[in-house]
Amino acid sequence: MKIGIIGTGAVGGYYGALLVKSGRDVHFLLRSDFAHVRAHGLRVTSVDGDIFQGPVRAYGAADDMPVCDIVIVALKTSENPHLSAILPKITRPGGAVVLLQNGLGNEADVAAIAPQAAMIGGLCFLCSQKTGPGHVRHLGYGSIRFGRYHRPGDTAAANSPLGTVMDLFAGAGVPVQKVDDLEKARWEKLVWNMAFNGPAVILSATTGRMMKNPSARALVRDLMAEVVGGAGACGHVLMDAFVDTLMDATDRMPDYSPSMKIDFEARRVLEIDAIYRRPIIAAQNQGFDMRQCRVILRQLEYLELNNQ
Amino acid sequence: MKIGIIGTGAVGGYYGALLVKSGRDVHFLLRSDFAHVRAHGLRVTSVDGDIFQGPVRAYGAADDMPVCDIVIVALKTSENPHLSAILPKITRPGGAVVLLQNGLGNEADVAAIAPQAAMIGGLCFLCSQKTGPGHVRHLGYGSIRFGRYHRPGDTAAANSPLGTVMDLFAGAGVPVQKVDDLEKARWEKLVWNMAFNGPAVILSATTGRMMKNPSARALVRDLMAEVVGGAGACGHVLMDAFVDTLMDATDRMPDYSPSMKIDFEARRVLEIDAIYRRPIIAAQNQGFDMRQCRVILRQLEYLELNNQ
Repeated sequence: MKIGIIGTGAVGGYYGALLVKSGRDVHFLLRSDFAHVRAHGLRVTSVDGDIFQGPVRAYGAADDMPVCDIVIVALKTSENPHLSAILPKITRPGGAVVLLQNGLGNEADVAAIAPQAAMIGGLCFLCSQKTGPGHVRHLGYGSIRFGRYHRPGDTAAANSPLGTVMDLFAGAGVPVQKVDDLEKARWEKLVWNMAFNGPAVILSATTGRMMKNPSARALVRDLMAEVVGGAGACGHVLMDAFVDTLMDATDRMPDYSPSMKIDFEARRVLEIDAIYRRPIIAAQNQGFDMRQCRVILRQLEYLELNNQ
Repeated sequence: MKIGIIGTGAVGGYYGALLVKSGRDVHFLLRSDFAHVRAHGLRVTSVDGDIFQGPVRAYGAADDMPVCDIVIVALKTSENPHLSAILPKITRPGGAVVLLQNGLGNEADVAAIAPQAAMIGGLCFLCSQKTGPGHVRHLGYGSIRFGRYHRPGDTAAANSPLGTVMDLFAGAGVPVQKVDDLEKARWEKLVWNMAFNGPAVILSATTGRMMKNPSARALVRDLMAEVVGGAGACGHVLMDAFVDTLMDATDRMPDYSPSMKIDFEARRVLEIDAIYRRPIIAAQNQGFDMRQCRVILRQLEYLELNNQ
């Protein structure tokens, strides 16, 4: 079984290294780090002890890669437009594409350009950062919630690739969980992402600083409650205690810079579309106005334009 | 007739100089600029040609000032706690206190510490900045809308000091307008102030940059509409076209740093209470949730704490 990793950053580098370490045949597509990784290999360090250091099968272009049975997409959603030139070349018909990405609507987009593959979404609960060329630093956590994306007309039997993918990650030591409703799981993750990513950019603040400041904490909680409202409007009713649970979990997390803050500081394109614009529009289409999140959206749009 | 000016900054310095120039007997209370102004006088320059340069009656302490018939308060609202040690000493019983300040609730606070005086509110439409010790730069505009604050039990005759104050300013060349409903006029001004002051701090943006950016412009418009809603909930129904009128007026304004942005950059205390917290609470008390403005409030609170 050949596995392709598209995007070898904080997410793709971490999970890809674990898969290599578990003996899998993994093929990494890289861009800026290609020459470095080909020459020096990939390195994943961790607060829990170093995870991996060594050569990997690295590629600078999709044309050079073998056709893969499972293609793991770990790009930022803002780079998904590149996938139409990649996935058709390297995805085996009947194989699976796994999107380890945040936000709404990614599977539907990608399903259209990889119609020959099963589409699986993965929600990573991972704190990691790319700290240099070919070097990923793991800060904590790492579990993934996997769910099948159902195209119109998919049958129940179409679930089988999900089990294969989950076994693959579980075999590499990744805690995995199956979700029956991928869209609902995506909204659950948005409750955290919409509450923290934008404010972290706008206030130039880590999660720890926000949680310790009563005003930022109240803001985060208000935003979470609004996302829960948006999820409900879209048919995904979350538990009453969900906001409290997330607040408590964040209090126990190490102090952390959400990915959008790291992207902003590196002057990269922000995942505004997947994490803010699409959920706000989805809720709007159901008659629910996410006003507070829209303030964050407008501020992010302004700041990103001035940051480029 | 003796006139006292409490706070000789961008507002008090500008209007005080105009009053001196019109031949009035004006007494300025200063703090940080006292020694400079006593030695070198006050200077007001303007885009329209220089306005004033010369000695003025400057004081470093209220104890040294004469009792005044009209006391003009041009402090930031965040400095109003100082007034209880100033106004009782220098306000003639039967005189008037004029608050040239932004936000809600100031007159009620000050009326309690100057019970012997008529209370008048003035809303300045003025672009000016203090650019150095004893030096104010006028950037445009300068009109004032005056209204009487009515204590419980005030009779119609109590309006007479309003005419005296308006004549005083009109005689100094200031365009004046009388408002019958001071609270409504304060809400009208809040529509602009709540839409621009906070975002200018949070986005580090001038009015011109916000108006030219579609996202910031949409944010400003959304905030304005919410403040109009808050005003309506508090019984002050503004015209349908009010938001458009303000947007058009701001498009015609010179590029401008709202006062809160200037205060933030100088690491001064921000007028968050008068401009955000009190209006939000007032609307909340009438069952109207100013959610978008509350996002701005929380962000300002966080940023101010980290700015001190």
